[in-house]
Order: sequence, then C-alpha cells, then structure tokens
Amino acid sequence: MATINAIEAIIRTGNLPVNVKFLIEGEEEIGSPNLGKFIANNKDLLACDFALNPDTGLLGKDLPTITYALRGLAYFEIRVFGPDHDLHSGIFGGIVHNPAQALCELIAGMHDEQGRIMLPGYYDKVRPIDEEERADLARLVMDEEFYLKQTGAPAIWGEAGYSPVERTGARPTLEVNGILSGFSGEGSKTVLPAWAMAKISMRLVPDQDPEDVYKQLQLYMKNNAPNTIRYEIIKMVGSPATISDRDSSGVKALDQAMEAVWGKRPVFKREGGSVPVVGMFQEILGVESVNCGFSLPDDNFHSPNEKLNLPTWYRGIDTLIHFFFNLKNE
Amino acid sequence: MATINAIEAIIRTGNLPVNVKFLIEGEEEIGSPNLGKFIANNKDLLACDFALNPDTGLLGKDLPTITYALRGLAYFEIRVFGPDHDLHSGIFGGIVHNPAQALCELIAGMHDEQGRIMLPGYYDKVRPIDEEERADLARLVMDEEFYLKQTGAPAIWGEAGYSPVERTGARPTLEVNGILSGFSGEGSKTVLPAWAMAKISMRLVPDQDPEDVYKQLQLYMKNNAPNTIRYEIIKMVGSPATISDRDSSGVKALDQAMEAVWGKRPVFKREGGSVPVVGMFQEILGVESVNCGFSLPDDNFHSPNEKLNLPTWYRGIDTLIHFFFNLKNE
Repeated sequence: MATINAIEAIIRTGNLPVNVKFLIEGEEEIGSPNLGKFIANNKDLLACDFALNPDTGLLGKDLPTITYALRGLAYFEIRVFGPDHDLHSGIFGGIVHNPAQALCELIAGMHDEQGRIMLPGYYDKVRPIDEEERADLARLVMDEEFYLKQTGAPAIWGEAGYSPVERTGARPTLEVNGILSGFSGEGSKTVLPAWAMAKISMRLVPDQDPEDVYKQLQLYMKNNAPNTIRYEIIKMVGSPATISDRDSSGVKALDQAMEAVWGKRPVFKREGGSVPVVGMFQEILGVESVNCGFSLPDDNFHSPNEKLNLPTWYRGIDTLIHFFFNLKNE
Repeated sequence: MATINAIEAIIRTGNLPVNVKFLIEGEEEIGSPNLGKFIANNKDLLACDFALNPDTGLLGKDLPTITYALRGLAYFEIRVFGPDHDLHSGIFGGIVHNPAQALCELIAGMHDEQGRIMLPGYYDKVRPIDEEERADLARLVMDEEFYLKQTGAPAIWGEAGYSPVERTGARPTLEVNGILSGFSGEGSKTVLPAWAMAKISMRLVPDQDPEDVYKQLQLYMKNNAPNTIRYEIIKMVGSPATISDRDSSGVKALDQAMEAVWGKRPVFKREGGSVPVVGMFQEILGVESVNCGFSLPDDNFHSPNEKLNLPTWYRGIDTLIHFFFNLKNE
C-alpha cells in the first residue's frame, strides 16, 4: 500500500507520478452526440494507457465502490396523430380514437404483468447474470428497504425473478420519461386532442445493440398500433452498455487506493446509468476505463436539491492521489 | 306560416311580438360552476315561458336542425404519484413503477377492445335508443364519410353495435382531454418522473347521474390501481344530460320558423356537447329549452381557425324573427 508515502511524495516533489490528460465534455446528459467524432479525429491527442471516469458514485459514505459495468441507452420520441385538428369532445367524442388514449394503450402494452418488456426480441441478446456475479451483487446493501428510502416510492416494482440491485444494473428497462397531449393546464377544457407524444427510453445491458432496439420498437408499433391513428418514431440517442475487465491494472490501482483511504476493500457494482464516453474509448481508442466518482445515493442526481458530501469529497481526493501512485507502481 | 308578414310586422312596428329576457353567461366552457346558484337566487328575474338556447349548430348549410337532446358532462383530473421526487432513470430505472406508465395502464383499461367503457356500472342507467329514434337518426347525413371529412382522422372508431351518429349523440363516452408527465420539451432528458396527470371527462346521456359516474371512476381506480403508486381524483365539472319534449310549443314554433326560411322541415338530432344551463332551467325554473344555433360542422368549434358562415348567419336571423312571431301565435 502506498498510503502516507504517496501523499508525501506529491507534497515533496509538487509533481504527479503519471501524466494526466483531461477530456471534459458538456454533452453527456444529451447522449454525447458529437463526442465520438471528436475522439475519432483526435486519436493522437487522446492516446493513453487507461481512463478514469468520475461519472459514477459510492453506495454509501463507508462503502468505497468501483463500478465495472454501465448500462447503455436508447432514447425515442413517439408521436401519435388522430384527427387533423383538435376537436370538441362533445361533438366528436365517440367516433374518433383519441390519440392520447391510443398512446396510453400502446405504452401499457410495453410491459407485461411481470414487469417484462414486450418489444419483440428485446431480451434475445441480453447477457445472463452468472451465479458468481449474482452472489456478489447479493452482498451489496441495495435491497428493497434501501431503494424505498432512496426513492420515497410507495412500493418496489420491477421484473419478476430479479433482485432490486439486478434490476437497476444488470437488467434492461423501458421508461416513459415524459408524455404530453391536449390540455394540461389548471381547470378543465373539453378538447379531443389531435396528437399525443411520449419520450420513451431503454437502459441497455451487454450485449444489446441500440440499433436492434430501434427495430424492436418499430416492430412493436407496427404490430400493435391500430389503423385509427398514425404515428412516428423519432430516434434520439443510442449508446451500448459497457463492462470492464476487473483484473486490469487501472482497476487494481483504484481497488488498492480505496482500501488505503477507507481501510477496507471496495465493493464492485454495476451502474444503471449510461456514460457513452466509456464505450467510445473502448471502441475507438481501445482504452479501458474504470468508473469511480464520490457522490452518494442521496445526492439527488438530476433532481432538485442536488448536493455533494464534503467529507466524502476529501476522501475522494486522497483516493485519487493514491490511484496515480499505484498506477505508476503497476 | 308567418313568413313575410312576420318580418313586415317587425319592420312596421319596430317591436318584437313577445318579451325577451337575455341571460348571458361566460362560464359555459368550464361547466357553469356558478350559474346554478345565480338562477336559484333570481327566479323572479328569470321567470319565462320558454327558453331558446343558441349553443348548438346545423348539420349543414341546407339542413335546418333542431337539437332535442344534449349530453351531460363529468370532468375529472387524475393524479398519479410514484417516487417522492424526480429520479435518474439509469440509477433507479427498474425498481420503481413509473407513474406515467402506471397512468397509461389505468387509462388503457378504461375501454375494452369493443370501445366499451369499463367503469363498473357505467351503462346501468343509460336510456336505450328505441327503434323509432334509431330510424330517425339513421336518416341524418352523419355517416362515416361525413365524420372522416369533418375530423381528418385516419379511420372511424367507437363503440361496437352503434352507428356514428348514435355514438356522438345517444351513447356516453370517456375521453382523455389532456395528459402530462415528466419531460415534454424538445430533445431528451432521462428523468423517471415523480408524478403524472390526466384530464378525463365523460359525456353522459339520459339517465346517467354525474355523481354516480364519480363513484364509478373511484371504484375503477380502487379496483385497478396497483399498490406501487398513489393517486388522487379531483372532481371538476358535473352536469346531467337533457332531453326536450319534441311536442312543446317552443319546439313547434322553431320547427315552423325553419321551414319558412329554408323551405323544408328541419331535422331533429341529439347533440354530443353539454350545455349545463339547459338542465338548470329544467330543474330550478321548470322551464323547457329548445336548442338552435346557426354554426356549421366545419366551423372548427374550440379549435384554431374558428369561423362563422355569413349566409347561414343571416338565415338564422330570419329564423329567429319567425320564431318569435310563431311563439306569440301559439
């Protein structure tokens, strides 16, 4: 373990033991639409031995965590059209398939009662969770009680046959991220709307392909949309899931760094979110990443009152100092 | 027939042959929440023999039309709550019942595949259409082709076993007037929303009671809402359907007035819209109404580019002159 000597070395020399290149992107939240091209055009500039990606978090203040897998993302907008203009629901109600109703019917059919996703072929390429990984995941603290507390939901829901931690990391999902039709202001308006729209996205796991998922959604709509409406599917974001080699030198360096700072070995987890750059580094540069940030589950990512816990943040700084020295010693 | 003599009489005397009281309300589009109280508090001021309500229209330029029945309205907002704040769909997707999805599932279950409404007991008090009325309605011009042209919808939809004109006038409906959840702007946002909302309204026919319908909706939600979400139902508007006596003196006076102006007898139809004041006049004042306005089906009520056809409007003026004289002669 490098521990105190490592920190002293930085203080003494004022230098990092390895060269560091920073790649800072501002499009991650919209699926990194331009990053792949930038990486492909700047391979020399970005050449490196290993990447550290700080866009994940810890399972708890006292639970150092390394994320070895990230889910991918496929994001779509579905637009349903009925009459060619908004109608009076009294005069025309009863003879037109309300597009908001039709969209609800289509969305309702996308899951069965077991929480399974009904797009044709959706699970065909999903890599099964092996028994060893199931056992590892079962040791994590993310049980029903944990998720009830984190979300405030009335009850836990999800795909039958899988534990909560498996559902959020190792199994694919389909979510309604938004829906809009007709009159949504205060009060009442008796409109029969001309159109309805939903944002639908899937979190993908290895080895699902976002292009396949697009075709599966198209096929689902073709099979299920009635002739009383028209529809469009707009493809917005697509990135595959990634999974890291847990025996790589970078993962080992981070593992030892966390043990030095927390006094215990980190846990290894899959992460439900998607970070397209990790897959792009693998594909375009042939560079592996280790994912490790220092946020906590109750930091309210992407939500009001987002925060950082400062004591954990300082432990993170110490961890990264150790990480760089460990990398040099590998 | 009063025809030319009637118009000459007004020109000659400058006076109407009957006394007219105007009641002008500005809340009809939101279900007339304050009108009932106003009528009850001003019975003497509003006392009259008969009411003419201009809030309906004609079936076509050459189809003088008297509306003898109006559908009622029950309007609700349903709010579905899941997690207690918006969540990151990657981190929490898979273990929470998405409230937008849950709302879609509930809305999808409100109709069966035959277009019938699945609220428990919804059809119990619906007055059947008798054979004579079915035959009358079948003679109207409102066939599938008419409705396809009026709405621009890809196909006609609705309750099996009933013709389009029956579905829009003599059968009750359930519409989604609006729905909103999560992110509905341009682009993508991977939110798992905390809540979803829909405006749901029913057009009612004799002898459905809006209070019964509220209870039926409550029971439907109780029977079908899963324990993975919470919900609220907000009751917004309720007014029963009305049906007029086709042999009343007011209806006869209008019948003859239309014949005088158009040179042919009017058709009698039910109207799918709701005009709460008609029911309030029946209930509170004991006064019957006849419903007759001079708009046309392609006037785009409640929609962009609403218009009036001026030649039809002038025929309407002539019709009302005859109507007042005919009333006096009854």
